[in-house]
Amino acid sequence: MDKETVGIIGTGWVGTSVAISTLHAGIAQRLWLHDLRAEVAEGEAMDLAHGAAFYPACEVAAVPLAQMREADVVVVAAGRNGRPGESRLDLLRDNARMATEVGQMLRGFGGVVVMVSNPVDVLTRVLQAASGLPPERVIGTGTLLDTARLRQIVGRQLRVAPGSLHIQVLGEHGDSSVPVWSGARLGGRPLRALAQWDAAFEPALAQQMRRAAYEVIQRKGATNHAIGLVTTRVLRALLLDERSILAVSRVQTGACGLQGVALSLPSLIGAGGALEVLEPEMDELERAALAASAAVLERAHASLS
Amino acid sequence: MDKETVGIIGTGWVGTSVAISTLHAGIAQRLWLHDLRAEVAEGEAMDLAHGAAFYPACEVAAVPLAQMREADVVVVAAGRNGRPGESRLDLLRDNARMATEVGQMLRGFGGVVVMVSNPVDVLTRVLQAASGLPPERVIGTGTLLDTARLRQIVGRQLRVAPGSLHIQVLGEHGDSSVPVWSGARLGGRPLRALAQWDAAFEPALAQQMRRAAYEVIQRKGATNHAIGLVTTRVLRALLLDERSILAVSRVQTGACGLQGVALSLPSLIGAGGALEVLEPEMDELERAALAASAAVLERAHASLS
Amino acid sequence: MDKETVGIIGTGWVGTSVAISTLHAGIAQRLWLHDLRAEVAEGEAMDLAHGAAFYPACEVAAVPLAQMREADVVVVAAGRNGRPGESRLDLLRDNARMATEVGQMLRGFGGVVVMVSNPVDVLTRVLQAASGLPPERVIGTGTLLDTARLRQIVGRQLRVAPGSLHIQVLGEHGDSSVPVWSGARLGGRPLRALAQWDAAFEPALAQQMRRAAYEVIQRKGATNHAIGLVTTRVLRALLLDERSILAVSRVQTGACGLQGVALSLPSLIGAGGALEVLEPEMDELERAALAASAAVLERAHASLS
Amino acid sequence: MDKETVGIIGTGWVGTSVAISTLHAGIAQRLWLHDLRAEVAEGEAMDLAHGAAFYPACEVAAVPLAQMREADVVVVAAGRNGRPGESRLDLLRDNARMATEVGQMLRGFGGVVVMVSNPVDVLTRVLQAASGLPPERVIGTGTLLDTARLRQIVGRQLRVAPGSLHIQVLGEHGDSSVPVWSGARLGGRPLRALAQWDAAFEPALAQQMRRAAYEVIQRKGATNHAIGLVTTRVLRALLLDERSILAVSRVQTGACGLQGVALSLPSLIGAGGALEVLEPEMDELERAALAASAAVLERAHASLS
Repeated sequence: MDKETVGIIGTGWVGTSVAISTLHAGIAQRLWLHDLRAEVAEGEAMDLAHGAAFYPACEVAAVPLAQMREADVVVVAAGRNGRPGESRLDLLRDNARMATEVGQMLRGFGGVVVMVSNPVDVLTRVLQAASGLPPERVIGTGTLLDTARLRQIVGRQLRVAPGSLHIQVLGEHGDSSVPVWSGARLGGRPLRALAQWDAAFEPALAQQMRRAAYEVIQRKGATNHAIGLVTTRVLRALLLDERSILAVSRVQTGACGLQGVALSLPSLIGAGGALEVLEPEMDELERAALAASAAVLERAHASLS
Repeated sequence: MDKETVGIIGTGWVGTSVAISTLHAGIAQRLWLHDLRAEVAEGEAMDLAHGAAFYPACEVAAVPLAQMREADVVVVAAGRNGRPGESRLDLLRDNARMATEVGQMLRGFGGVVVMVSNPVDVLTRVLQAASGLPPERVIGTGTLLDTARLRQIVGRQLRVAPGSLHIQVLGEHGDSSVPVWSGARLGGRPLRALAQWDAAFEPALAQQMRRAAYEVIQRKGATNHAIGLVTTRVLRALLLDERSILAVSRVQTGACGLQGVALSLPSLIGAGGALEVLEPEMDELERAALAASAAVLERAHASLS
Repeated sequence: MDKETVGIIGTGWVGTSVAISTLHAGIAQRLWLHDLRAEVAEGEAMDLAHGAAFYPACEVAAVPLAQMREADVVVVAAGRNGRPGESRLDLLRDNARMATEVGQMLRGFGGVVVMVSNPVDVLTRVLQAASGLPPERVIGTGTLLDTARLRQIVGRQLRVAPGSLHIQVLGEHGDSSVPVWSGARLGGRPLRALAQWDAAFEPALAQQMRRAAYEVIQRKGATNHAIGLVTTRVLRALLLDERSILAVSRVQTGACGLQGVALSLPSLIGAGGALEVLEPEMDELERAALAASAAVLERAHASLS
Repeated sequence: MDKETVGIIGTGWVGTSVAISTLHAGIAQRLWLHDLRAEVAEGEAMDLAHGAAFYPACEVAAVPLAQMREADVVVVAAGRNGRPGESRLDLLRDNARMATEVGQMLRGFGGVVVMVSNPVDVLTRVLQAASGLPPERVIGTGTLLDTARLRQIVGRQLRVAPGSLHIQVLGEHGDSSVPVWSGARLGGRPLRALAQWDAAFEPALAQQMRRAAYEVIQRKGATNHAIGLVTTRVLRALLLDERSILAVSRVQTGACGLQGVALSLPSLIGAGGALEVLEPEMDELERAALAASAAVLERAHASLS
């Protein structure tokens, strides 16, 4: 009767959305919060703990960074968002520094790391390298969020539950993400074979998915609920050892011909992390788009050195 | 704030398994039970009600048959099982008589009927005809159970969560059921394209699925848990108006060239029943197997007259 | 199969915390959001909808204020927080204006209103008067939050689950709230009869509870998670017609000798609102404290005119 | 990320009801079943596993008895029911033999045992002695079931949620059980102080509770749902280390002046079992009734030697 422990580093909008969804899911018996602004993590822990009668039993506490080494899973939601006028690279450098520091702190860590901060793919790679942990134990939420968004957007259009739409978005969590339309299916029928489908819809729907974050940020200044739910989905697969297939990011070691770069491919998630990577069927354009996405990420990573 | 009401006709092993799973799911605020043996339904209602503090609020009561007309969804789990030595036809005739009577009682009913008793496809058709309800409002659990079993069997073999395996079983819930191997996918990759897969496995796995009920009955005398969970899955889609795609049975009105026969095809399930039927991609052998399955069901139905 | 609909007016920290907890709870099939800043409500609805695959089916949408009249329950989380240096009365006046406007908009409304904004008791009274709705259909979350906090604080001290501690906080949600220590029990034993209890602890624990909001706000600038969970607890009792007893605020019509003032007493919550008010056992000091709390609220209300 | 493991010995009506409720609750990642009739346990495991896609990830398997030593919690639902015409003592002896054997098998066991078979109090004592485990690690579900029934019966009468009724039943799970009416409260008010209450109701309500099992058995031949839900409640408190107070049975070591006998008192349930026993407030009649109940159990235990 060990207590499953989830640690969250960074208790801004995103980190606290992960926290509340994790508490509702009832998948951890200990929830540890840490933030550079120690008093913020403390305030969040107090606020969450005050509602303890209304979620499955879980001890919530603010902890020092080093204590995260004793968690089963550590979620990294630290780092900052972009500032008006600054270059993308400045943001990348600052967050990469954070990922490096967290990675170094986690050298020899026995659990799994889930990176949520952006740019999530580069940070997943940076943290994996800095920590020396095996690639399967450093996961980025990656395109699981893009996949959720695309399913919701297409589901609304077709008036069908998003969970019944089998479509995946792979590659970078960002502008070069790759929706695999050729493999999209509904009830065992290719989407492209549905009477009400027209491949001409696809670019606009993909664009809507890619712009979703911008649209939300423009309206409310941040995105947090969906990423909180998505991250909790990954935590559930890890903590219950589900062996589910989810499109998440990790440093690739050969799948789809990729080596070294971190990006999202369908991965088998169980107690030990992203244990296996599957190679989905794609058409030629999609394969090219995935390669291009990998190249974007390689360039971003190279820009750090 | 209307109370969602689920009625269950027949409170044997299967009906009560539907009941307990429905209570856990928290999808109904009233659960009505009826059985020819009125005292059995009463005993079940008492036993379930005694645990009321441990599931989301729901009133459980034994009710007269006619009150079922006021439910939102009526589950039909009545009828009997086969007796040693009797012909299949004798069983069919007796259960068809039950389905006819329930159907007549439900003429003009405003909700949805979910048939669970066997042979489920023939009884779905008989009840739909007797009730005069539109085909989308008389659903049989059909091959959703076979699909669940096949996913669990294949999932165990591949060591992957059954929910991540996209494979459907269609046609008759019975010996002529049709696993659509050609469309089976894992993480966007055809099962048949996986290194660890061999199409030579398929007949044995299909056989294992078809024999699952026999194997369970041989050991414990009945099957009830899985069908209870499967039925609750259908109830959830109906009561929450999910618009999910599930392989369930209904009288077909043209999909896959079928007309009049009730069997399972991927169907969109929402508040009004099995609202649309999808035509899944199949190879030639599978299409032939589906036609053969329809023929089996036509013959069984014809044997009634 | 009607769709239970929850509307939330005001999508700041608190309103969105109510939203995410309601989605996790799976108690509504429609969630409507409205905010004066229409684009914020829109952004929140988009962000929540993107995660649709990860909570029970629910349509999330931003709606015009007037559409709230068609909801089953309307949560009012609008209004503003205090500004440094301004008088408490200025804040009260502004939020009372909001409550009046919402109340007028809801004249003839057929559902239940749950007030969350502060000062919650005065606003509950103002909205009830402006709407003309019967007192049982305008509820304030009141001291249910204080009760949750006190249970958590005492539970942590005694190392016992907060849900097993039977203690209530009544009166004003604010500085004059009344913890009913005389009736507090653990496992059927008065808290004051426990070997490890000392009545000398009580003032400090009450103080800790009353300061909880300040402590959280000081650290993170707002409180939102616990109030979101508490509000969802009330919604669950309403939507499932639980007939649970919860300490919530409503305009009193005689219980404990109170008339006209809105404050929290143990109330029976079911589909039609706070249907009955119970008179808890209290000692003389507690009764006096409750009267004093009512007087504080009467003065606050009088200050509005 | 250890897998919480629940083992169930005895897969009759009760054991399988514990199984399905445990799966729905999502509190274990491994569920092990054992029965003397090995093929029955195997059949139940198969049937439950076939529904794997519809509950939180959990491996279900039939296992040899000795493997139960590696579980976190072992539920004992083995033994037989009474036969028409036989003496109560014959039944007791047979089930005590079972409890002794299971206890011996569990010598040195590192987890917690939850006894469900009847007469549950005597069997709890027998198993504890045979196993040599500390008293807090051998729990009987005891009067938690009677408590649930009384709350439901009184709740239906008062039209209030059973979870809001604070009333406990203590002592023997059986005819000498003791409802503590003097401490019963609703919303902080003694039940006996409610206008609609009359102490004259109490004997009839207590009788209804005591006869509940007989009434259910008379109608359906067994009781299983409520005890399955109650047992899962205890498992939840153990596996999530809730530190909740529940009225369960264990060998007493001094509380309420009792020593050596196993019966139900309010107990603090956390990861290590029934860690502490509370002494509830009772009036003189109730104290006498508890002593009488202990005497009944002492006599039953003495009859074994």
